[in-house]
Amino acid sequence: MNYSKINNEDIVFLESLCGKDKVFTEDSINEDFSHDELSGINQYPEVLVEVSSTEEVSKIMKYAAKRNIPVTPRGQGTGLVGGSVAIHGGIMMNMSSMNKIIELDEENLTLTVESGVLLMKISKFVEEHDLFYPPDPGEKSATIGGNINTNAGGMRAVKYGVTRDYVRGLEVVLADGEVMEFGGKIVKNSSGYSLKDMIVGSEGTLAIVTKAVLRLLPLPQKTISLLIPYPDLAQAIETVPLIIKSKSIPTAIEFMEREVILVAEDFLGKAFPDSSAAAYLLLTFDGNSKEEIEQAYEKVAHICLDNGALDVFISNTRERNEAIWSARGAFLEAIKSSTSEMDECDVVVPRKFVADFIKDIKTLQDEFGVRIMNFGHAGDGNLHIYVLKDELTEEIWKQKLNAVFDKMYAKADKLGGLVSGEHGIGCAKKTFLQRSIGDSGIALLKRIKLSFDPANILNPGKVCQ
Amino acid sequence: MNYSKINNEDIVFLESLCGKDKVFTEDSINEDFSHDELSGINQYPEVLVEVSSTEEVSKIMKYAAKRNIPVTPRGQGTGLVGGSVAIHGGIMMNMSSMNKIIELDEENLTLTVESGVLLMKISKFVEEHDLFYPPDPGEKSATIGGNINTNAGGMRAVKYGVTRDYVRGLEVVLADGEVMEFGGKIVKNSSGYSLKDMIVGSEGTLAIVTKAVLRLLPLPQKTISLLIPYPDLAQAIETVPLIIKSKSIPTAIEFMEREVILVAEDFLGKAFPDSSAAAYLLLTFDGNSKEEIEQAYEKVAHICLDNGALDVFISNTRERNEAIWSARGAFLEAIKSSTSEMDECDVVVPRKFVADFIKDIKTLQDEFGVRIMNFGHAGDGNLHIYVLKDELTEEIWKQKLNAVFDKMYAKADKLGGLVSGEHGIGCAKKTFLQRSIGDSGIALLKRIKLSFDPANILNPGKVCQ
Repeated sequence: MNYSKINNEDIVFLESLCGKDKVFTEDSINEDFSHDELSGINQYPEVLVEVSSTEEVSKIMKYAAKRNIPVTPRGQGTGLVGGSVAIHGGIMMNMSSMNKIIELDEENLTLTVESGVLLMKISKFVEEHDLFYPPDPGEKSATIGGNINTNAGGMRAVKYGVTRDYVRGLEVVLADGEVMEFGGKIVKNSSGYSLKDMIVGSEGTLAIVTKAVLRLLPLPQKTISLLIPYPDLAQAIETVPLIIKSKSIPTAIEFMEREVILVAEDFLGKAFPDSSAAAYLLLTFDGNSKEEIEQAYEKVAHICLDNGALDVFISNTRERNEAIWSARGAFLEAIKSSTSEMDECDVVVPRKFVADFIKDIKTLQDEFGVRIMNFGHAGDGNLHIYVLKDELTEEIWKQKLNAVFDKMYAKADKLGGLVSGEHGIGCAKKTFLQRSIGDSGIALLKRIKLSFDPANILNPGKVCQ
Repeated sequence: MNYSKINNEDIVFLESLCGKDKVFTEDSINEDFSHDELSGINQYPEVLVEVSSTEEVSKIMKYAAKRNIPVTPRGQGTGLVGGSVAIHGGIMMNMSSMNKIIELDEENLTLTVESGVLLMKISKFVEEHDLFYPPDPGEKSATIGGNINTNAGGMRAVKYGVTRDYVRGLEVVLADGEVMEFGGKIVKNSSGYSLKDMIVGSEGTLAIVTKAVLRLLPLPQKTISLLIPYPDLAQAIETVPLIIKSKSIPTAIEFMEREVILVAEDFLGKAFPDSSAAAYLLLTFDGNSKEEIEQAYEKVAHICLDNGALDVFISNTRERNEAIWSARGAFLEAIKSSTSEMDECDVVVPRKFVADFIKDIKTLQDEFGVRIMNFGHAGDGNLHIYVLKDELTEEIWKQKLNAVFDKMYAKADKLGGLVSGEHGIGCAKKTFLQRSIGDSGIALLKRIKLSFDPANILNPGKVCQ
């Protein structure tokens, strides 16, 4: 791709628009902005600019379009697939300062925010108003813009769905700088193709999200968690389809193995409530009536005990729930800190095939002599599987990683699964997306990309390019 | 547009593919296929073919693409905006015979169906298995393919959302005849742009839906309805934002006026439980615990009584619920039977502005001397407003209709509303969509359309063309 290189005039333009203290080049760019949380893809932007308004974003895009400069929007950089790395250089637009909560509308049950607001700020703010923003990805310091761009799911997807289900409207800036609104404070919409839904999950390649109207629910008054030990992982996971079939749907169904718990205990310096068993299911139930929750969880507890569970630990205080779930939230960081480097597979499969998939992974660990750790959302079929480099040489590691990934993604495909449940494609998973949807699938995505961004300046090299 | 006309060779091809008894031309085409339920747009296709498999749909599209023949997919023709009328002639593909329920997967809580299955068949089938397909449009004899293509919403959107929220996967045939699957039996998906969501609501202009994987929920064990009379409509509707704000969210919140009830009583030959008041709210609550439902509805009943309601009638038997809701389901047909011709406005506005919008409509009735009836989904802001021709001449009627519509859509736009909540754009609402999203919005939709269908043979002349 034949993009223009950033020159002095470009810097002067950005400084005059956003302020000198908001524009960074060369050594003044913090190293953090050359990569994301995991992908191993490294590239500095030519210039980093901290934007503070939709108007600035629009003016920069107009300028970049005229000059043919690539632009990479960036939230907190917590992604795992290189989606927010400026692999073609150019301008990186840091959206983190666009972090205002604009309006809570209790009559429409909506929250309007700028895209740089952190997920943790949103959940705290709405809960103070006895309201609830259900999407619950593990990484609470991600921006809502990042969550929208990957259609993040998180733990509560079993009952509540994913980010897409809670985005009612978006304000975006298109590649040519035009500001548009898709959707709004409305509950239904059949007014032309759903551009809002095209942007959700598009990883910054179709438009830059500047504002979002989020849908809220009333905060459930009661929450209870069950930690359920099993003698082995297969038995734990095989219970999940039986739970779903029982029609008592939990808010979340996570699975974890002892080895991951031990790594997390080590990382946090805190003991998990129990780590004596080989594997665990972690379930949550929420609702407004104690009776309803009790009825549901007692039924599910019996199903688990009838299918090999060793015990059922009930956690019904806020403190105990937080202790368990904060450990769960630290798994990724903990595993990362236990090795020299790692990469992740984020496939999603129909939930009744999770056990089948996990069994396969175990054999890969032995077959390739590489450490593989995993945990994930058993209730929605979305797995997070980490392949660890440990002491392997770079060359051997890449070889093994590719071989292991090839087998994992092929297996997911065979089970009717897809490449990514919630982390997206970015740069790192493009090959696997191509294999999954084929040349004509990729060609269709490319045509859609060009219908939004004909010069391909918005986050180029990602998803389908 | 320069499409090929159907010739004898085309008929021979269709007959050899689908069978002679499945292909209709000229006088053998039933008059029903020249229009839909309401739009007043009339055009016969050159040939009507009843398809019975994805393979047939694919072969016809390949053929049509080569010959440059327009193709209009058609379900039960219950649309209101001309979306399923073959305005450019060509081939009409009747999908109604593709009506098999393929698989109920209780472990994944999904139902896989062909696109010609009727909505009423789906809800009956899953309820027999103690499961629930929440979308509940008034027209139960529509096909699920039609519901998907308009992203139909219905009465339960307040609590459960719309059709889009219950489509997990689609099998579609593209304009060039290629068969593709978007999504699947999976709960989360961040694997490239959401093509599934692009198809939902696209009114047959991007691809032909042949199969759908629908998401199911456990069937709520208890349902209760409240019929709440008010001295006038404004007071009734002004209560709705207060109900939402109270955080006791009903499953449905409908509003209706006495004049509509009287028309429905007349049409059905059955009395409504009460028709003494000028206006009513009709609410439903569902759940699994009696206590929870009671707590919610008692709170809401008090809010209503504190804000002008004359009484609260509780309906907690299946028979009484059905009597009320079947009357509600007949409103459209009843109004239609009370006049010579009518047209509809299906705007959606933020729910706190419904009262404001309805007040405006009342003034239009007097200002233009035309009968206007309305009812709708107060809980989700989606209104169905009918302008009635009665004894007006064709010329005067068209004049008044245009003038009234101009004012209605302008008002909705001013309130942050959009053109269609659930009936789509079709041919009839194109002007209003253009005014709402502007030239550059329409241009973007057109580019997306061409990225799916470069020769513009799929349901041409609809939505953005």
